Amino acid sequence: MATTTRKRKPPRYHHGDLRHALIDVAEVLLDEGGPEAVTLREASRRLGVTAAAVYRHFADRDSLLSELAVRGFDAFGQALHLAAAGAKDPLAAMGQAYVRFAVARPGRFRLMFGPAVADRSRHPALLQAVERASIGFRGVAAGETPDEHAAAMLRAWAVIHGLSHLLIDGMLPGQDPELLARVLTKSKSPT
Amino acid sequence: MATTTRKRKPPRYHHGDLRHALIDVAEVLLDEGGPEAVTLREASRRLGVTAAAVYRHFADRDSLLSELAVRGFDAFGQALHLAAAGAKDPLAAMGQAYVRFAVARPGRFRLMFGPAVADRSRHPALLQAVERASIGFRGVAAGETPDEHAAAMLRAWAVIHGLSHLLIDGMLPGQDPELLARVLTKSKSPT
Repeated sequence: MATTTRKRKPPRYHHGDLRHALIDVAEVLLDEGGPEAVTLREASRRLGVTAAAVYRHFADRDSLLSELAVRGFDAFGQALHLAAAGAKDPLAAMGQAYVRFAVARPGRFRLMFGPAVADRSRHPALLQAVERASIGFRGVAAGETPDEHAAAMLRAWAVIHGLSHLLIDGMLPGQDPELLARVLTKSKSPT
Repeated sequence: MATTTRKRKPPRYHHGDLRHALIDVAEVLLDEGGPEAVTLREASRRLGVTAAAVYRHFADRDSLLSELAVRGFDAFGQALHLAAAGAKDPLAAMGQAYVRFAVARPGRFRLMFGPAVADRSRHPALLQAVERASIGFRGVAAGETPDEHAAAMLRAWAVIHGLSHLLIDGMLPGQDPELLARVLTKSKSPT
């Protein structure tokens, strides 16, 4: 019964607390409606603070999105790491954890890998987070054919990234994500 | 020198012509800025017609996006079909055409496969276009393990869909899309 009273009274935040509260509420918006749903205006509205207070912590929407993507990659990297630790087939276990993360948190997955953060190079912390998550592909020199190992790594990544997208984008209706992830990460031959 | 005069005079469209003009300008918006950039307001502004005129042809933004997605899938299906016809390895050729389409038209690719069309089931023409494009996965009954053929088909789709996303989302900077598509569609054994 105190709820309506509390709503009307704008909360006061100690220095630093508002930043955390903003990130928390932005993650809720992200989970609810994907990257498009994350705006500084909506975050400040939900917290009952002014836009000016928000801008003291995030210069613009892109900075907030970048911060969420950093956190996403850190959680993602941890999930992959945990899955691989002690698994009989670490690559398969990581692949399954990858799909599980995407299906459980499609908004975060879209933010992390999609075009929502306009220019990743503006955000060094984001580039570092991608590096920390230890996903990726070392790349090949232009015109050079990737060797067997590099090709196998990229193929494994593409399969699991593609499956994640097909699942969260509704292209595999009625299918069991866990089952498909298991089937597609089953190695046909030792590599 | 007649350009400025033409700009000020709102064009008049015969019945049906405005619909086509709207689709054309919406495709330009899609190519320029992805699905988010496509709005009925911006389309009408660029054509110099009223919003009311636009609403006679498209009930809402979702209907316009669905129409663009239908056209996208038709062009996509045609590109895959053309690539496969007469190719030594039709599946590889289709895979390479798939990636080429995504890289050349990332906005369309995102619209077709992404969450921009809020509810595909509201648009039967869109479901039919996906069917016509002959991509997809027949699916397996819940709990049933896909047979070898179904698993191979889904794996091939996921690899190429994942590679497309990684490329258009900037996760493989500096890499040659054509080269990677060739490498990842190379079948290791005849299936």
